[in-house]
Amino acid sequence: MECDLVNISSTNMTLEKTKNIELAELGEFGLIKRVTSQIKIKNESTLRGVGDDCAVLNYPDRKIVVTTDLLTEGVHFNLVYVPLKHLGYKAVSVNISDVCAMNAIPRQITVSLAISSKFTLEAIDELYEGIHLACANYGVDLIGGDTTSSLTGLTISVTAIGEAVEEDLVYRSGAKPTDLLCVTGDLGGAYLGLQLLERENELFRLNPTVQPQLSGYDYILSRQLKPEARTDMREIFKSIVVKPTSMIDISDGLSSEILHLCEESGVGCRLYEERLSFDPQTKKMAEEININPLVAALNGGEDYELLFTIPVNDHDKVRNHPDITVIGHMTKKEEGAMLVTVGGIQEIPLQAQGWNPIG
Amino acid sequence: MECDLVNISSTNMTLEKTKNIELAELGEFGLIKRVTSQIKIKNESTLRGVGDDCAVLNYPDRKIVVTTDLLTEGVHFNLVYVPLKHLGYKAVSVNISDVCAMNAIPRQITVSLAISSKFTLEAIDELYEGIHLACANYGVDLIGGDTTSSLTGLTISVTAIGEAVEEDLVYRSGAKPTDLLCVTGDLGGAYLGLQLLERENELFRLNPTVQPQLSGYDYILSRQLKPEARTDMREIFKSIVVKPTSMIDISDGLSSEILHLCEESGVGCRLYEERLSFDPQTKKMAEEININPLVAALNGGEDYELLFTIPVNDHDKVRNHPDITVIGHMTKKEEGAMLVTVGGIQEIPLQAQGWNPIG
Repeated sequence: MECDLVNISSTNMTLEKTKNIELAELGEFGLIKRVTSQIKIKNESTLRGVGDDCAVLNYPDRKIVVTTDLLTEGVHFNLVYVPLKHLGYKAVSVNISDVCAMNAIPRQITVSLAISSKFTLEAIDELYEGIHLACANYGVDLIGGDTTSSLTGLTISVTAIGEAVEEDLVYRSGAKPTDLLCVTGDLGGAYLGLQLLERENELFRLNPTVQPQLSGYDYILSRQLKPEARTDMREIFKSIVVKPTSMIDISDGLSSEILHLCEESGVGCRLYEERLSFDPQTKKMAEEININPLVAALNGGEDYELLFTIPVNDHDKVRNHPDITVIGHMTKKEEGAMLVTVGGIQEIPLQAQGWNPIG
Repeated sequence: MECDLVNISSTNMTLEKTKNIELAELGEFGLIKRVTSQIKIKNESTLRGVGDDCAVLNYPDRKIVVTTDLLTEGVHFNLVYVPLKHLGYKAVSVNISDVCAMNAIPRQITVSLAISSKFTLEAIDELYEGIHLACANYGVDLIGGDTTSSLTGLTISVTAIGEAVEEDLVYRSGAKPTDLLCVTGDLGGAYLGLQLLERENELFRLNPTVQPQLSGYDYILSRQLKPEARTDMREIFKSIVVKPTSMIDISDGLSSEILHLCEESGVGCRLYEERLSFDPQTKKMAEEININPLVAALNGGEDYELLFTIPVNDHDKVRNHPDITVIGHMTKKEEGAMLVTVGGIQEIPLQAQGWNPIG
């Protein structure tokens, strides 16, 4: 991982730096030049990138997928403990993850920023370092955007564009009863990484001489601060000759995503608690704050793994795959979307966590 | 114009309404359903719109253009005097205008919103009314977006996608010395509309019993509050058999846009003051606040007209066209970008207005 995790104590320093070069001095066009000068176009489909009223793309024999996500300070991130480079990386990842959830190949992104006067040019550079690193890692071109001011805080809006041949595209709506429900990677880590950051930040706030205790938690911190979109799964599906019948990425939490697949596909589901396994750091942190890691997986979100269904006949193809876990199966709609607890003792209806627009 | 101008005194009432239905009650998914339920796909190129991880588009024999703009409360708009419906409309228009500046046909948009808790559901509905109206008027499909909360204020991020055959596309970079510099419509109105709104708002703030005096200023108010992108120009160019050599839309002011064309095309320019004519309301308001309407045109921005160059041999084709005014001509780069004052008395270098990231 080229983008090292920065520890909390150095993070918010970015904002306190002497304003060596003022943003106002540089101006909008100067800033745009600065942050786009290093862009080298990587994809054939990008005919023109930044520098005109629009970018120009060319997709003569592919379908195009488009997705967009908006991150706001104080709601999606807290700059006290989120390094700007990571934030830039994550803002790209969460969009690339949506492209992956269509089984498509990401190709281009646009990035729009609203920046308040508290940000130095160095801070913006750091944010763009993360954005450029993500573009490099995912092989996507930054083709446009908008840079503007805001009265308070930072807002980042990213749009990602990708491609696929029609027969490769996977929607949310194709799951059939009896299909197996599968997930990539492990869940709950991103949420528990956030809990750790918030706890240590609170302790630091109460007593600034206390050094944050983050060692031994690299994994869950990286899950929270620098999530990686599963761009690898498209190739994996190809290599094991499996095409998911439905797919979604896990941004809001497993419960909510399962309910989306059920609703869009018109099916029910049984999720087996005992099929979910957790990373040791996830388990340790869950224990420390006295919650069940299952709750973090179901409701925490931000894991950016892929949740998908496959025909039951493909079970052997995924059974021992290191990146894939079968966690349940789809049912008829009338049977509902249920969590089956360990040992099959209880069946509990899955519930989507409410989103709170009040922030 | 279906979207009537609302007068100031009723505008900010939107935010004060009883919160009949709380946003929190409805939740994110409820809100998305509510604002997307009326969408009917209009374009063949939109294979799938909202409802999955990505929208899916199909452009087998066209180039695709992509642009994005971000509007933030307090910087780009003041909700005290900007009706939300107009704001929604304008957020779409400014992006469609960029598509027009490529000589392309707009087809799809995504809309992302960050909303603070001060907004009622009715306010969001009003904003979307304007967005949907713009989609209807411009024939574009709303294919996706993100709706999230913000700690303060409203942020709107729109991405627009359009299409063109390669030979129709017009970039900023094709102007040649001797090309004629042309503009559509008239300039300065949007800026003076804003000055009027700000003046009346200030008077209203000082004495709330004073009714805002807006009558007789419909034109400049509509230029500011509900700008229309020049989607008509593509057909006009076709009908008069003119293909611009370079083009840009006027969002930042004529000076700044001319300088963009000069820089990207590697040419200079002479803009003749006497070639610019102004709407009577623009002139009247300029007089009232004691500025030269020329200054509003050069530095005001937000007119969303098209600025373009054509070969000098095409002069006869545009000479008497009601939508097109020849305002100058391009020169060699060494001659600079100059404003020639009335009667040719002075040549003044054009200057881009600084953008102030401090807001």
